[in-house]
Amino acid sequence: MTTIAVIGGTGKEGKGLALRWANAGYEIIIGSRDAERAVMAAHELNATLGNTNVSGLDNAAAARTAEIVVLSVPYEAHAATLDMIADGTQGKILIDVTAPLDPENKKRALHVPEGSAAQAAQVKLGPSVRVVAAFQNISYTHLTDLHEDLGCDVLVCGNDKEAKKQVIELAKAAGMAAFDAGPIENAMVAEGLTAVLININIAFKIKNTGIRVTGVPRD
Amino acid sequence: MTTIAVIGGTGKEGKGLALRWANAGYEIIIGSRDAERAVMAAHELNATLGNTNVSGLDNAAAARTAEIVVLSVPYEAHAATLDMIADGTQGKILIDVTAPLDPENKKRALHVPEGSAAQAAQVKLGPSVRVVAAFQNISYTHLTDLHEDLGCDVLVCGNDKEAKKQVIELAKAAGMAAFDAGPIENAMVAEGLTAVLININIAFKIKNTGIRVTGVPRD
Repeated sequence: MTTIAVIGGTGKEGKGLALRWANAGYEIIIGSRDAERAVMAAHELNATLGNTNVSGLDNAAAARTAEIVVLSVPYEAHAATLDMIADGTQGKILIDVTAPLDPENKKRALHVPEGSAAQAAQVKLGPSVRVVAAFQNISYTHLTDLHEDLGCDVLVCGNDKEAKKQVIELAKAAGMAAFDAGPIENAMVAEGLTAVLININIAFKIKNTGIRVTGVPRD
Repeated sequence: MTTIAVIGGTGKEGKGLALRWANAGYEIIIGSRDAERAVMAAHELNATLGNTNVSGLDNAAAARTAEIVVLSVPYEAHAATLDMIADGTQGKILIDVTAPLDPENKKRALHVPEGSAAQAAQVKLGPSVRVVAAFQNISYTHLTDLHEDLGCDVLVCGNDKEAKKQVIELAKAAGMAAFDAGPIENAMVAEGLTAVLININIAFKIKNTGIRVTGVPRD
Protein backbone atom coordinates (compact mmCIF):
# COMPACT_ATOMS: atom_id res chain seq x y z
CA MET A 1 0.00 0.00 0.00
CA THR A 2 1.10 3.57 -0.65
CA THR A 3 3.46 5.13 1.88
CA ILE A 4 2.37 8.60 3.02
CA ALA A 5 4.58 11.04 4.90
CA VAL A 6 2.70 13.51 7.07
CA ILE A 7 5.07 16.44 7.57
CA GLY A 8 4.00 18.27 10.70
CA GLY A 9 2.36 15.04 11.78
CA THR A 10 2.94 15.78 15.45
CA GLY A 11 0.45 18.69 15.19
CA LYS A 12 -3.26 18.20 15.76
CA GLU A 13 -4.46 18.32 12.15
CA GLY A 14 -1.59 16.25 10.77
CA LYS A 15 -1.89 13.64 13.50
CA GLY A 16 -5.64 13.39 12.87
CA LEU A 17 -5.11 12.76 9.15
CA ALA A 18 -2.33 10.25 9.90
CA LEU A 19 -4.65 8.38 12.27
CA ARG A 20 -7.38 8.12 9.64
CA TRP A 21 -5.02 6.90 6.91
CA ALA A 22 -3.21 4.47 9.23
CA ASN A 23 -6.60 3.10 10.18
CA ALA A 24 -7.37 2.62 6.47
CA GLY A 25 -4.18 0.53 6.12
CA TYR A 26 -1.70 2.99 4.56
CA GLU A 27 1.94 2.97 5.62
CA ILE A 28 2.37 6.28 7.45
CA ILE A 29 5.56 8.15 8.25
CA ILE A 30 5.14 10.98 10.71
CA GLY A 31 7.60 13.79 9.94
CA SER A 32 8.78 16.35 12.46
CA ARG A 33 11.72 18.73 12.78
CA ASP A 34 12.68 16.49 15.68
CA ALA A 35 12.85 12.78 14.75
CA GLU A 36 12.32 11.73 18.39
CA ARG A 37 9.03 13.60 18.60
CA ALA A 38 7.98 11.99 15.31
CA VAL A 39 8.72 8.52 16.71
CA MET A 40 6.75 9.30 19.87
CA ALA A 41 3.72 10.43 17.85
CA ALA A 42 4.01 7.28 15.72
CA HIS A 43 4.03 5.08 18.84
CA GLU A 44 0.96 6.92 20.10
CA LEU A 45 -0.96 6.31 16.86
CA ASN A 46 0.09 2.64 16.69
CA ALA A 47 -1.07 2.18 20.29
CA THR A 48 -4.43 3.85 19.56
CA LEU A 49 -5.05 1.65 16.54
CA GLY A 50 -3.37 -1.58 17.72
CA ASN A 51 -1.37 -1.42 14.48
CA THR A 52 2.30 -1.17 13.52
CA ASN A 53 2.03 0.75 10.25
CA VAL A 54 3.04 4.18 11.60
CA SER A 55 6.67 5.18 11.96
CA GLY A 56 8.49 8.47 12.60
CA LEU A 57 11.40 10.30 10.95
CA ASP A 58 12.71 13.82 10.65
CA ASN A 59 10.94 15.87 7.95
CA ALA A 60 13.57 15.48 5.23
CA ALA A 61 13.87 11.70 5.67
CA ALA A 62 10.08 11.29 5.91
CA ALA A 63 9.59 13.10 2.60
CA ARG A 64 12.43 11.15 0.96
CA THR A 65 11.02 7.79 2.06
CA ALA A 66 7.34 8.28 1.20
CA GLU A 67 5.52 8.09 -2.13
CA ILE A 68 3.05 10.87 -1.27
CA VAL A 69 3.95 13.79 0.99
CA VAL A 70 1.36 15.68 3.06
CA LEU A 71 2.35 19.08 4.46
CA SER A 72 0.45 20.15 7.57
CA VAL A 73 2.22 23.01 9.31
CA PRO A 74 1.23 26.53 10.40
CA TYR A 75 1.78 29.02 7.58
CA GLU A 76 4.55 30.64 9.66
CA ALA A 77 6.58 27.42 9.26
CA HIS A 78 5.56 26.78 5.64
CA ALA A 79 8.54 28.19 3.76
CA ALA A 80 11.16 26.76 6.12
CA THR A 81 9.55 23.32 6.07
CA LEU A 82 9.37 23.34 2.27
CA ASP A 83 13.13 23.93 2.21
CA MET A 84 13.61 20.81 4.36
CA ILE A 85 11.50 18.56 2.12
CA ALA A 86 12.28 20.03 -1.31
CA ASP A 87 14.75 17.29 -2.27
CA GLY A 88 12.57 14.47 -0.96
CA THR A 89 9.43 15.56 -2.79
CA GLN A 90 10.87 15.79 -6.35
CA GLY A 91 8.67 13.84 -8.77
CA LYS A 92 6.03 13.19 -6.10
CA ILE A 93 2.60 14.49 -5.09
CA LEU A 94 2.66 17.10 -2.34
CA ILE A 95 -0.68 17.61 -0.58
CA ASP A 96 -0.60 21.03 1.04
CA VAL A 97 -2.97 21.34 4.02
CA THR A 98 -1.67 24.76 5.05
CA ALA A 99 -4.22 27.54 5.64
CA PRO A 100 -2.60 31.00 5.87
CA LEU A 101 -4.23 33.03 8.65
CA ASP A 102 -3.35 36.55 9.69
CA PRO A 103 -1.04 36.02 12.69
CA GLU A 104 -2.62 39.06 14.39
CA ASN A 105 -6.18 37.85 13.85
CA LYS A 106 -6.96 34.22 13.05
CA LYS A 107 -10.41 35.25 11.83
CA ARG A 108 -8.75 36.94 8.86
CA ALA A 109 -7.50 34.97 5.85
CA LEU A 110 -3.98 36.02 4.92
CA HIS A 111 -3.45 37.08 1.32
CA VAL A 112 -0.05 35.62 0.45
CA PRO A 113 2.08 37.02 -2.39
CA GLU A 114 1.94 33.82 -4.47
CA GLY A 115 -1.89 33.70 -4.19
CA SER A 116 -2.11 30.77 -1.78
CA ALA A 117 0.09 28.51 0.31
CA ALA A 118 -0.23 25.80 -2.34
CA GLN A 119 1.00 28.14 -5.06
CA ALA A 120 3.89 29.22 -2.82
CA ALA A 121 4.76 25.52 -2.40
CA GLN A 122 4.68 25.00 -6.15
CA VAL A 123 7.06 27.93 -6.68
CA LYS A 124 9.48 26.64 -4.05
CA LEU A 125 9.41 22.95 -5.03
CA GLY A 126 9.51 23.44 -8.80
CA PRO A 127 7.54 21.91 -11.66
CA SER A 128 8.32 18.21 -11.05
CA VAL A 129 6.23 18.23 -7.86
CA ARG A 130 2.49 17.89 -8.34
CA VAL A 131 1.08 20.20 -5.66
CA VAL A 132 -2.51 19.62 -4.57
CA ALA A 133 -4.30 21.76 -1.95
CA ALA A 134 -6.74 19.84 0.27
CA PHE A 135 -7.94 18.98 3.80
CA GLN A 136 -7.56 22.50 5.26
CA ASN A 137 -11.07 22.64 6.70
CA ILE A 138 -11.44 19.37 8.54
CA SER A 139 -11.85 19.70 12.28
CA TYR A 140 -9.10 17.69 14.00
CA THR A 141 -11.47 16.63 16.78
CA HIS A 142 -13.62 15.03 14.11
CA LEU A 143 -10.60 13.32 12.59
CA THR A 144 -9.56 11.93 15.94
CA ASP A 145 -12.88 10.25 16.65
CA LEU A 146 -12.86 7.45 14.11
CA HIS A 147 -16.56 6.79 14.53
CA GLU A 148 -17.53 10.38 13.86
CA ASP A 149 -19.22 11.45 10.63
CA LEU A 150 -16.79 14.17 9.54
CA GLY A 151 -19.56 16.48 8.34
CA CYS A 152 -17.20 18.31 6.02
CA ASP A 153 -16.37 17.91 2.36
CA VAL A 154 -12.86 18.31 0.99
CA LEU A 155 -12.16 20.80 -1.82
CA VAL A 156 -9.24 19.55 -3.91
CA CYS A 157 -7.34 22.11 -6.01
CA GLY A 158 -4.39 21.60 -8.31
CA ASN A 159 -3.27 21.51 -11.92
CA ASP A 160 -2.70 17.74 -12.27
CA LYS A 161 -5.93 15.80 -12.72
CA GLU A 162 -4.38 12.41 -11.97
CA ALA A 163 -2.86 13.72 -8.72
CA LYS A 164 -6.23 15.18 -7.72
CA LYS A 165 -7.85 11.79 -8.35
CA GLN A 166 -5.39 10.16 -5.97
CA VAL A 167 -6.11 12.79 -3.33
CA ILE A 168 -9.86 12.27 -3.72
CA GLU A 169 -9.25 8.53 -3.14
CA LEU A 170 -7.22 9.34 -0.01
CA ALA A 171 -10.07 11.50 1.27
CA LYS A 172 -12.51 8.65 0.70
CA ALA A 173 -10.23 6.24 2.54
CA ALA A 174 -10.26 8.66 5.49
CA GLY A 175 -14.07 8.84 5.48
CA MET A 176 -14.57 12.12 3.61
CA ALA A 177 -16.26 13.13 0.38
CA ALA A 178 -13.95 15.19 -1.81
CA PHE A 179 -14.49 17.25 -4.95
CA ASP A 180 -12.19 18.43 -7.70
CA ALA A 181 -12.44 22.16 -7.00
CA GLY A 182 -10.39 23.30 -9.99
CA PRO A 183 -6.91 24.61 -10.71
CA ILE A 184 -4.36 25.65 -8.12
CA GLU A 185 -5.52 29.29 -8.36
CA ASN A 186 -8.65 28.14 -6.49
CA ALA A 187 -6.58 26.93 -3.52
CA MET A 188 -7.03 30.36 -1.88
CA VAL A 189 -10.72 29.45 -1.48
CA ALA A 190 -10.15 26.15 0.31
CA GLU A 191 -7.36 27.69 2.40
CA GLY A 192 -9.35 30.82 3.25
CA LEU A 193 -12.42 28.83 4.24
CA THR A 194 -10.48 27.95 7.37
CA ALA A 195 -10.65 31.60 8.45
CA VAL A 196 -14.35 31.75 7.53
CA LEU A 197 -15.12 28.69 9.66
CA ILE A 198 -13.11 30.14 12.57
CA ASN A 199 -15.47 33.16 12.49
CA ILE A 200 -18.52 30.91 12.60
CA ASN A 201 -17.03 28.67 15.31
CA ILE A 202 -16.38 31.71 17.51
CA ALA A 203 -19.80 33.29 16.88
CA PHE A 204 -21.61 30.08 17.84
CA LYS A 205 -19.09 29.09 20.55
CA ILE A 206 -18.49 25.73 18.86
CA LYS A 207 -15.44 24.03 17.37
CA ASN A 208 -16.45 21.83 14.52
CA THR A 209 -18.19 23.68 11.73
CA GLY A 210 -17.45 22.54 8.22
CA ILE A 211 -18.86 22.91 4.72
CA ARG A 212 -20.78 20.61 2.46
CA VAL A 213 -21.34 20.87 -1.24
CA THR A 214 -25.08 20.78 -1.94
CA GLY A 215 -26.94 19.72 -5.06
CA VAL A 216 -24.53 16.94 -6.07
CA PRO A 217 -25.31 13.24 -6.29
CA ARG A 218 -23.74 11.32 -3.37
CA ASP A 219 -22.71 7.66 -3.12
CA MET B 1 -39.72 49.36 4.02
CA THR B 2 -36.11 49.72 2.94
CA THR B 3 -35.47 50.65 -0.70
CA ILE B 4 -32.85 48.44 -2.39
CA ALA B 5 -31.16 49.24 -5.70
CA VAL B 6 -29.95 46.20 -7.62
CA ILE B 7 -27.27 47.50 -9.96
CA GLY B 8 -26.95 45.03 -12.81
CA GLY B 9 -30.49 43.95 -12.01
CA THR B 10 -31.20 43.07 -15.62
CA GLY B 11 -28.68 40.21 -15.36
CA LYS B 12 -29.70 36.75 -14.21
CA GLU B 13 -28.26 36.82 -10.70
CA GLY B 14 -29.34 40.40 -9.96
CA LYS B 15 -32.82 39.84 -11.29
CA GLY B 16 -33.17 36.70 -9.18
CA LEU B 17 -32.21 38.58 -6.01
CA ALA B 18 -34.53 41.46 -6.93
CA LEU B 19 -37.39 39.00 -7.39
CA ARG B 20 -36.84 37.46 -3.97
CA TRP B 21 -36.65 40.82 -2.19
CA ALA B 22 -39.61 42.28 -4.08
CA ASN B 23 -41.56 39.19 -3.07
CA ALA B 24 -40.61 39.86 0.55
CA GLY B 25 -42.06 43.37 0.27
CA TYR B 26 -38.96 45.56 -0.21
CA GLU B 27 -39.07 48.51 -2.57
CA ILE B 28 -36.74 47.51 -5.40
CA ILE B 29 -35.05 49.69 -8.00
CA ILE B 30 -33.49 47.81 -10.87
CA GLY B 31 -30.40 49.65 -12.11
CA SER B 32 -28.95 49.26 -15.60
CA ARG B 33 -26.63 51.24 -17.84
CA ASP B 34 -29.74 51.69 -19.95
CA ALA B 35 -32.75 53.05 -18.00
CA GLU B 36 -35.20 51.57 -20.53
CA ARG B 37 -33.87 48.06 -20.03
CA ALA B 38 -34.14 48.61 -16.27
CA VAL B 39 -37.79 49.64 -16.60
CA MET B 40 -38.53 46.60 -18.77
CA ALA B 41 -36.97 44.25 -16.19
CA ALA B 42 -38.97 45.99 -13.45
CA HIS B 43 -42.22 45.46 -15.37
CA GLU B 44 -41.34 41.82 -15.83
CA LEU B 45 -40.78 41.32 -12.09
CA ASN B 46 -43.96 43.20 -11.15
CA ALA B 47 -45.91 41.05 -13.59
CA THR B 48 -44.41 37.84 -12.18
CA LEU B 49 -45.28 38.83 -8.63
CA GLY B 50 -48.51 40.73 -9.23
CA ASN B 51 -46.91 43.60 -7.30
CA THR B 52 -45.97 47.20 -8.07
CA ASN B 53 -42.92 47.58 -5.82
CA VAL B 54 -40.24 47.23 -8.50
CA SER B 55 -39.12 50.18 -10.62
CA GLY B 56 -36.22 50.82 -12.97
CA LEU B 57 -33.62 53.60 -13.36
CA ASP B 58 -30.17 54.04 -14.80
CA ASN B 59 -27.39 52.84 -12.46
CA ALA B 60 -26.43 56.26 -11.08
CA ALA B 61 -30.02 57.28 -10.31
CA ALA B 62 -30.83 53.85 -8.86
CA ALA B 63 -27.90 54.08 -6.44
CA ARG B 64 -28.76 57.67 -5.52
CA THR B 65 -32.39 56.84 -4.77
CA ALA B 66 -31.95 53.64 -2.72
CA GLU B 67 -30.95 53.14 0.90
CA ILE B 68 -29.00 49.95 0.24
CA VAL B 69 -27.15 49.31 -3.02
CA VAL B 70 -26.50 45.81 -4.38
CA LEU B 71 -23.88 45.43 -7.10
CA SER B 72 -24.32 42.39 -9.35
CA VAL B 73 -22.22 42.73 -12.50
CA PRO B 74 -19.55 40.63 -14.21
CA TYR B 75 -16.10 41.47 -12.87
CA GLU B 76 -15.19 42.92 -16.28
CA ALA B 77 -17.78 45.68 -15.68
CA HIS B 78 -17.02 46.11 -11.95
CA ALA B 79 -14.69 49.13 -12.02
CA ALA B 80 -16.70 51.06 -14.63
CA THR B 81 -19.96 50.44 -12.78
CA LEU B 82 -18.45 51.54 -9.47
CA ASP B 83 -17.54 54.83 -11.13
CA MET B 84 -21.20 55.32 -12.12
CA ILE B 85 -22.55 54.67 -8.62
CA ALA B 86 -19.77 56.18 -6.49
CA ASP B 87 -21.67 59.41 -5.73
CA GLY B 88 -24.95 57.66 -5.05
CA THR B 89 -23.53 55.14 -2.58
CA GLN B 90 -21.76 57.57 -0.21
CA GLY B 91 -22.78 56.89 3.39
CA LYS B 92 -24.68 53.72 2.40
CA ILE B 93 -24.21 49.96 2.48
CA LEU B 94 -22.92 48.47 -0.77
CA ILE B 95 -23.48 44.72 -1.09
CA ASP B 96 -20.99 43.41 -3.65
CA VAL B 97 -22.13 40.19 -5.34
CA THR B 98 -19.31 40.21 -7.90
CA ALA B 99 -17.24 37.03 -8.30
CA PRO B 100 -14.03 37.61 -10.30
CA LEU B 101 -13.45 34.71 -12.71
CA ASP B 102 -10.57 34.32 -15.11
CA PRO B 103 -12.04 35.53 -18.45
CA GLU B 104 -10.07 32.81 -20.26
CA ASN B 105 -11.31 30.03 -17.96
CA LYS B 106 -14.38 30.47 -15.76
CA LYS B 107 -13.26 27.47 -13.68
CA ARG B 108 -10.38 29.56 -12.38
CA ALA B 109 -10.86 32.19 -9.64
CA LEU B 110 -9.21 35.45 -10.61
CA HIS B 111 -6.74 36.87 -8.11
CA VAL B 112 -7.41 40.63 -8.23
CA PRO B 113 -4.79 43.15 -7.13
CA GLU B 114 -6.89 44.50 -4.22
CA GLY B 115 -7.46 40.95 -2.90
CA SER B 116 -11.13 40.64 -3.88
CA ALA B 117 -13.81 42.51 -5.80
CA ALA B 118 -15.26 43.76 -2.51
CA GLN B 119 -11.92 45.22 -1.46
CA ALA B 120 -11.57 46.84 -4.88
CA ALA B 121 -15.04 48.39 -4.36
CA GLN B 122 -14.00 49.70 -0.96
CA VAL B 123 -10.90 51.33 -2.43
CA LYS B 124 -12.91 52.97 -5.23
CA LEU B 125 -15.89 54.12 -3.12
CA GLY B 126 -13.95 55.36 -0.10
CA PRO B 127 -14.36 54.89 3.64
CA SER B 128 -17.91 56.27 4.04
CA VAL B 129 -19.36 53.31 2.13
CA ARG B 130 -19.83 50.12 4.15
CA VAL B 131 -18.92 47.40 1.66
CA VAL B 132 -20.23 43.90 2.38
CA ALA B 133 -19.49 40.88 0.15
CA ALA B 134 -22.35 38.38 -0.14
CA PHE B 135 -24.66 36.30 -2.39
CA GLN B 136 -21.99 35.31 -4.95
CA ASN B 137 -22.76 31.59 -4.82
CA ILE B 138 -26.51 31.43 -5.15
CA SER B 139 -27.74 29.72 -8.30
CA TYR B 140 -30.00 32.12 -10.19
CA THR B 141 -32.30 29.31 -11.26
CA HIS B 142 -32.91 28.61 -7.58
CA LEU B 143 -33.58 32.30 -6.92
CA THR B 144 -36.09 32.44 -9.73
CA ASP B 145 -38.21 29.58 -8.44
CA LEU B 146 -39.74 31.14 -5.34
CA HIS B 147 -40.84 27.78 -3.97
CA GLU B 148 -37.42 26.25 -4.24
CA ASP B 149 -35.30 25.52 -1.19
CA LEU B 150 -32.17 27.46 -2.13
CA GLY B 151 -29.84 24.81 -0.76
CA CYS B 152 -27.03 27.29 -0.36
CA ASP B 153 -25.85 29.37 2.57
CA VAL B 154 -24.60 32.93 2.20
CA LEU B 155 -21.14 33.91 3.49
CA VAL B 156 -21.19 37.57 4.52
CA CYS B 157 -17.83 39.38 4.72
CA GLY B 158 -17.11 42.97 5.68
CA ASN B 159 -15.62 45.21 8.31
CA ASP B 160 -18.87 46.75 9.66
CA LYS B 161 -20.76 44.41 11.98
CA GLU B 162 -24.01 46.38 11.84
CA ALA B 163 -23.98 46.39 8.03
CA LYS B 164 -23.35 42.62 8.02
CA LYS B 165 -26.35 42.17 10.35
CA GLN B 166 -28.57 44.01 7.89
CA VAL B 167 -27.29 41.84 5.03
CA ILE B 168 -27.95 38.69 7.04
CA GLU B 169 -31.54 39.94 7.55
CA LEU B 170 -31.87 40.55 3.80
CA ALA B 171 -30.67 37.00 3.13
CA LYS B 172 -33.27 35.66 5.54
CA ALA B 173 -36.00 37.70 3.86
CA ALA B 174 -34.98 36.09 0.56
CA GLY B 175 -35.14 32.57 2.03
CA MET B 176 -31.45 31.98 2.72
CA ALA B 177 -29.41 31.28 5.82
CA ALA B 178 -26.44 33.62 6.08
CA PHE B 179 -23.36 33.68 8.28
CA ASP B 180 -20.95 36.41 9.31
CA ALA B 181 -17.85 35.06 7.59
CA GLY B 182 -15.44 37.65 8.93
CA PRO B 183 -13.63 40.75 7.72
CA ILE B 184 -13.48 41.95 4.13
CA GLU B 185 -10.16 40.11 3.59
CA ASN B 186 -12.25 36.91 3.63
CA ALA B 187 -14.35 38.10 0.67
CA MET B 188 -11.94 36.31 -1.71
CA VAL B 189 -13.26 33.04 -0.26
CA ALA B 190 -16.93 33.75 -0.91
CA GLU B 191 -16.11 35.21 -4.34
CA GLY B 192 -13.76 32.37 -5.30
CA LEU B 193 -16.27 29.72 -4.25
CA THR B 194 -18.15 30.64 -7.41
CA ALA B 195 -15.27 29.26 -9.49
CA VAL B 196 -15.11 26.17 -7.27
CA LEU B 197 -18.83 25.50 -7.77
CA ILE B 198 -18.48 26.00 -11.53
CA ASN B 199 -15.92 23.16 -11.52
CA ILE B 200 -18.29 20.88 -9.64
CA ASN B 201 -21.28 21.86 -11.82
CA ILE B 202 -19.33 21.00 -14.97
CA ALA B 203 -17.95 17.72 -13.58
CA PHE B 204 -21.44 16.52 -12.61
CA LYS B 205 -23.19 18.15 -15.60
CA ILE B 206 -25.52 20.04 -13.27
CA LYS B 207 -26.18 23.72 -12.65
CA ASN B 208 -27.14 24.30 -9.09
CA THR B 209 -24.51 23.20 -6.63
CA GLY B 210 -24.07 25.31 -3.53
CA ILE B 211 -22.47 25.12 -0.11
CA ARG B 212 -23.85 24.66 3.35
CA VAL B 213 -22.17 25.33 6.65
CA THR B 214 -22.32 22.17 8.77
CA GLY B 215 -22.22 21.78 12.53
CA VAL B 216 -24.12 24.99 13.36
CA PRO B 217 -27.47 25.22 15.08
CA ARG B 218 -30.25 26.12 12.60
CA ASP B 219 -33.57 27.88 13.18
